[in-house]
Amino acid sequence: MTMTITMTSSKSLSAPGDRLQDYETEDGAAWRVSALKKVSYDVMVQPRLLDPANPALARAVTSGAAPARRLIVIDATVHSLYGEQLAAYLASQDVEFNLCVIDAHESVKVMDTVFEVVDAMDAFGVPRRHAPVLAMGGGVLTDVVGLAASLYRRATPYVRIPTTLIGMVDAGIGAKTGVNFREHKNRLGTYHPSSLTLIDPGFLNTLDARHLRNGLSEILKIALIKDAELFELLAEYGASLVEQRMQPGEDAAEGAALTVLRRAVQGMLEELQPNLWEHQLRRLVDFGHSFSPAVEMAALPELLHGEAVCVDMALSSVLAHHRGLLTVAELGRVLDVMRVLHLPVLHPVCTPELMRRALADTVKHRDGRQHLPLPRGIGDAVFVDDLTQQEVEAALLMLAEHEQAPQQPTLRGPLDLGV
Amino acid sequence: MTMTITMTSSKSLSAPGDRLQDYETEDGAAWRVSALKKVSYDVMVQPRLLDPANPALARAVTSGAAPARRLIVIDATVHSLYGEQLAAYLASQDVEFNLCVIDAHESVKVMDTVFEVVDAMDAFGVPRRHAPVLAMGGGVLTDVVGLAASLYRRATPYVRIPTTLIGMVDAGIGAKTGVNFREHKNRLGTYHPSSLTLIDPGFLNTLDARHLRNGLSEILKIALIKDAELFELLAEYGASLVEQRMQPGEDAAEGAALTVLRRAVQGMLEELQPNLWEHQLRRLVDFGHSFSPAVEMAALPELLHGEAVCVDMALSSVLAHHRGLLTVAELGRVLDVMRVLHLPVLHPVCTPELMRRALADTVKHRDGRQHLPLPRGIGDAVFVDDLTQQEVEAALLMLAEHEQAPQQPTLRGPLDLGV
Repeated sequence: MTMTITMTSSKSLSAPGDRLQDYETEDGAAWRVSALKKVSYDVMVQPRLLDPANPALARAVTSGAAPARRLIVIDATVHSLYGEQLAAYLASQDVEFNLCVIDAHESVKVMDTVFEVVDAMDAFGVPRRHAPVLAMGGGVLTDVVGLAASLYRRATPYVRIPTTLIGMVDAGIGAKTGVNFREHKNRLGTYHPSSLTLIDPGFLNTLDARHLRNGLSEILKIALIKDAELFELLAEYGASLVEQRMQPGEDAAEGAALTVLRRAVQGMLEELQPNLWEHQLRRLVDFGHSFSPAVEMAALPELLHGEAVCVDMALSSVLAHHRGLLTVAELGRVLDVMRVLHLPVLHPVCTPELMRRALADTVKHRDGRQHLPLPRGIGDAVFVDDLTQQEVEAALLMLAEHEQAPQQPTLRGPLDLGV
Repeated sequence: MTMTITMTSSKSLSAPGDRLQDYETEDGAAWRVSALKKVSYDVMVQPRLLDPANPALARAVTSGAAPARRLIVIDATVHSLYGEQLAAYLASQDVEFNLCVIDAHESVKVMDTVFEVVDAMDAFGVPRRHAPVLAMGGGVLTDVVGLAASLYRRATPYVRIPTTLIGMVDAGIGAKTGVNFREHKNRLGTYHPSSLTLIDPGFLNTLDARHLRNGLSEILKIALIKDAELFELLAEYGASLVEQRMQPGEDAAEGAALTVLRRAVQGMLEELQPNLWEHQLRRLVDFGHSFSPAVEMAALPELLHGEAVCVDMALSSVLAHHRGLLTVAELGRVLDVMRVLHLPVLHPVCTPELMRRALADTVKHRDGRQHLPLPRGIGDAVFVDDLTQQEVEAALLMLAEHEQAPQQPTLRGPLDLGV
């Protein structure tokens, strides 16, 4: 917002700092309010969270001041698997608790579910600052609880324990909260990170293979845009990581599990930290998130988030190949890893028309520009602002051909699109 | 959130700055994400906003880059009074617009109204950053649009034109957005100031006397906690300010109008700026806002916000008197100004039981403490943390007696409450 200001006072308007300045315009009094908000939060890998010998979780929610009483919002599946263990743990740590159990999945990632959490907060009597709500579940659950906590009394603290891989490397470690609205993915939300995220890879032991792959898709994203070494780990150990549920151990594949998790979190946080409020709309982590919001919502509930992201990454990789940014060999390797991970590269909802609308909405979300991240080789990326519908349609065709015979790819060299 | 961290790496964890730090705990990897958010916004007094000769409003919403297209959310009453003038103005400035008309009042200050605004934003296709939504109306309207803008794509910009006095000195110039939820006042909301607030006192010309007094109540609040001179202006010119609708002019009362407005805005912003996100819960501007949220909601739709605040200020002033913080003469002057402004000092919903529940909820909102601002003389205030229900009930009795015979007050010296 710029205004032509005629200064009649002797003060000069300075850059934003932390102050109130009053000044005069031609027409009257005026004030500039400037303030700095400091945000700081921790993400910790903490195995054996529910082991009574491990005080980390109790300390995290009580700041060490047990006995205490806390509200826990927990996913229904996680509750059925770990409810008893959690109750025993908290009893051992002198923490009383109320439970709010939510059957969280993408279809109920809506404001009504946020209100359910708010009702639980009201019934519990959550105070303003000192009793963080504990959110335990996958990305949908932590996004919904995050938004409830953000809105409740205009911000109450919360702690996240992501129990899915996508939660551990993506949804549960950033600042964003959100829900879908009408047909729009994450149309409503805020920036409100939990004060702490505790990552216990042990929870992955009970995660089904599909949800594990769902998380590996976001890890593949980080690998493709900035971490070639992480890509090599996925290429080499992808199948074992799924099979062994990312559990650490002695053999090479087991050893890779912790490295993969750690590099994924590190890479994601490196991208998020300097741009926590997305003032910069050219975001590498938007790779795979340009077409996928519309794809995911159109296919709901058929595709998981990471699956829709993978469809987008496959399309974007073909687009990159057609622009000469990925060699045919590199594209082949990317699609191979997706195949090994059993991740989809195309879905019937991906019509040229849906892709056109998807990109148009993404352009609104990026304030009028495409800012489309495309891989440049493996482990690097560039932004493109002049993608045409013709390129999208050519890429869709190539992916359709590839799907017919993925083992003998019909991958060609860069297309001459005449653009 | 504090955790006992055993540092095994050589890095030392520093105070929050703007960085990503990775470190090691006994159990595994950990990261601290720290970031600084800079917020800056302007509040300007701008007479004749809808005069085609005045480009200020057009510049404010278009950043000078007309022709442009903007969404305007406007209160139904404001639309009926100023809709034609606004349309003519925008036509003259080459700004196309879509209107979203909302009949805003406290009873519809709820999420469903936020969704109405979000639907209008979706239908309009509001982009992420460069096309601020214009919110034009009273405090309820700007609070609702502010929350919609805050949630939409996790923050879109907006510009406020408060058309009521309470909007100009209170609701429309701070960072808070919000709606009521179930029976709770402003239970859901965010901190998301508009990039700019334009105050045109001309709109007060068509504001009814009751709503003008509603705004004077919040001005009286600022006067009582920190500005004795402002109190004297209200004491001397209160009746004229209402009668002349705060319009500036030649005589003394008219001259006082602009001074009152300016001091009220200045005082409010001085209190808000250093505490924009309410990290500090001892807030002078909470004077009149400890009991009033429950009073306002219980009496809905009977009391306007400023009226409920005045009931709270009267009660708090008697409490202050009983504690020896206000002399009988000072209390008499405070209640006199309220009477001159035709503001209520008591309401039938104010039972001891409601007051008890009101304070209990406020204590939750202030994280377990009362942090109750009470005036100390006129133009100063202190915080109290040990108010008893007995004191509240004694104060209610005194106010009830005073209401019976306000002209010959039965005001007594400080009570011996035996506390």
